[in-house]
Amino acid sequence: MTNHVITVTLSESKKQKPQSDQLEFGRVFTDHMFVADYCEGQGWTDHRIIPYAPLEMDPAATVFHYGQTIFEGLKAYVGKEGQVLLFRPEENMRRMNKSSERLCMPAFNEEIAIEALEKLISIDKDWIPVTEGTSLYIRPFMVATEPYLGVSPSKKYKFIIILSPVGSYYKEGIHPVKILVENEYVRAVAGGTGTAKTAGNYASGLRAQEIASKKGYSQVLWLDGVERKYIEEVGSMNVFFKINGEVITPILNGSILEGITRKSILQLLRHWDIPVVERKISMEELRSAHQAGTLEEAFGTGTAAVVSPIGELNWGDDIMVVNNNQTGELSKKLYETLTGIQTGKVEDSFGWVVEVTDTVKV
Amino acid sequence: MTNHVITVTLSESKKQKPQSDQLEFGRVFTDHMFVADYCEGQGWTDHRIIPYAPLEMDPAATVFHYGQTIFEGLKAYVGKEGQVLLFRPEENMRRMNKSSERLCMPAFNEEIAIEALEKLISIDKDWIPVTEGTSLYIRPFMVATEPYLGVSPSKKYKFIIILSPVGSYYKEGIHPVKILVENEYVRAVAGGTGTAKTAGNYASGLRAQEIASKKGYSQVLWLDGVERKYIEEVGSMNVFFKINGEVITPILNGSILEGITRKSILQLLRHWDIPVVERKISMEELRSAHQAGTLEEAFGTGTAAVVSPIGELNWGDDIMVVNNNQTGELSKKLYETLTGIQTGKVEDSFGWVVEVTDTVKV
Ligand SMILES: Cc1ncc(COP(=O)(O)O)c(C=O)c1O
Ligand SMILES: Cc1ncc(COP(=O)(O)O)c(C=O)c1O
Repeated sequence: MTNHVITVTLSESKKQKPQSDQLEFGRVFTDHMFVADYCEGQGWTDHRIIPYAPLEMDPAATVFHYGQTIFEGLKAYVGKEGQVLLFRPEENMRRMNKSSERLCMPAFNEEIAIEALEKLISIDKDWIPVTEGTSLYIRPFMVATEPYLGVSPSKKYKFIIILSPVGSYYKEGIHPVKILVENEYVRAVAGGTGTAKTAGNYASGLRAQEIASKKGYSQVLWLDGVERKYIEEVGSMNVFFKINGEVITPILNGSILEGITRKSILQLLRHWDIPVVERKISMEELRSAHQAGTLEEAFGTGTAAVVSPIGELNWGDDIMVVNNNQTGELSKKLYETLTGIQTGKVEDSFGWVVEVTDTVKV
Repeated sequence: MTNHVITVTLSESKKQKPQSDQLEFGRVFTDHMFVADYCEGQGWTDHRIIPYAPLEMDPAATVFHYGQTIFEGLKAYVGKEGQVLLFRPEENMRRMNKSSERLCMPAFNEEIAIEALEKLISIDKDWIPVTEGTSLYIRPFMVATEPYLGVSPSKKYKFIIILSPVGSYYKEGIHPVKILVENEYVRAVAGGTGTAKTAGNYASGLRAQEIASKKGYSQVLWLDGVERKYIEEVGSMNVFFKINGEVITPILNGSILEGITRKSILQLLRHWDIPVVERKISMEELRSAHQAGTLEEAFGTGTAAVVSPIGELNWGDDIMVVNNNQTGELSKKLYETLTGIQTGKVEDSFGWVVEVTDTVKV
């Protein structure tokens, strides 16, 4: 059984906090981190909050060689009354356990993960930036640590949570991005690891992303790896299209990540009685809609940007400008509603937001 | 420019060496390791041989989150006269640089890598086991170390070489294994990272391997991820079939790893004037050959086992026994010739073997 008393060792020195307007994404980390250790036969032990510090890892640790590692990403916001808010953290912890199953890694109790998270955030509360659009990015992850070069699941793991204050994704307000449709490289394929949040999927995507960036595109749009026809995701976001009044997003087909923003947007749209469908959608269909003038909006969704309108799509020789390269009405409404709920400014009628209670005291 | 003076810091204490007959694969490591650091703008610096010890890595290091890591695997053997022999090390270093390109990682000079390797082996020479079938397994690898959570190539890396004395793959002599044809999970797909020796490919394969092991199979046979028809690899080995006197191996199609054992076997077969072809081969074709009685031999090839005869293939409801579950004549000849060349017992007319010279002195 897991013994989960969380011990706390406070850092003796505090790092200097960056200024809110100079925050980037994921460069600066808070004073503490949460760590727990797993060993086959013993389960998870030694749950602890300790000063943020380098990990000591054997050079033969499984994670370095066979990539057994999974992660999650979510954010904490400070609300109007100074309360600290999390957005659907239980969804992240559930997804993490789905990822761990695919990668032959041990499950981590979801309630304990959230308890650890809340305790860690309470301790590093002063690190949460308060300027409009900023937040505290939370990165839970699990890595395989057994020093063994046989290709088999590790018998030892670490579960870690680190925190990073991050700036606004849109420095000059929400604005549309240019996307390159990727015809050569493939992110994932059914039967592979595309539905898991595991390192290899991201390593695999770097090359295409680098080429797209050099050409002036902010992200790539991934096509399915089998027919190279159907739309999967955009960079590390799920993707939505509004065609002729109906919202379409690719159905979860076994190679797409099940985004929590995606799920929330589907719920919002249904709540608003806006026609929405999850189904296969091909680039051909998108081009036809564009030519017919019925492609009204396109946007990516994910924790980092929440909603990211797409202003231009480049597919081979075709350049499709969407909605005159302006942020569409629906994209804007979704962005404002979701970020409003996340920061406690818009009423949360879905029960999505969790307040970090101050009862979690050191 | 890379400054590659290799400094040496010897370990003050020596670890106890395991007994030759108790060696496993990749569990025990020698007294020293080679490390070099890369930083964008500076290239590779601080080439050093130091005592084998844990790495200190920031919890936000790219390798833990986005899997930017590649590796190689080769072996050193002690020959009859006590000389230390490497098998085609330049091929491994070349492949490592191909992998690094796919993963947006920096190249590492191939000659310096081999120099570092030879120097490290000279220092830990006493660790090379001498019993028949044993060897020193060499694991060069490169990991991304920049503490940054943005999904982009790291600006910092470590190149590391570790050494592990390993036992004989075949404790009771070469013998055929049982293989399960994998119909659900996919290892790699063209456009993905299958041709690179990178962690994500192995993480992805663990689940299928685990299921196969539970059913009593030693490895899975991977099918192509598009049509799920064509044969790709067996576990972490390339695969060959002898049908009606002709040897067939799947052609390098963009998702198969280009094995150095595979390449050497193709060269040997051509040298011996045995008909051999690299082409697509489907499970249907294999089954037909089996039914017609023309599937004469099947074997996997890789650094670990060199040649691994396949005695039984399970494809859904079909169980195909190959060559009466006996090691075939050709499999045996290839195994003996290759291991003979590797250990200096068979004349190396191809110039494959490199002797580690003792001029590399500390
Ligand atoms: C590949 C990929 N797709 C989609 C998403 C969006 O998921 P979520 O909305 O849960 O952040 C992410 C990450 O956040 C991702 O990494
Ligand atoms: C996926 C995979 N295929 C094939 C091989 C065989 O390659 P080599 O003969 O170079 O060892 C390996 C590794 O060794 C491998 O990891």
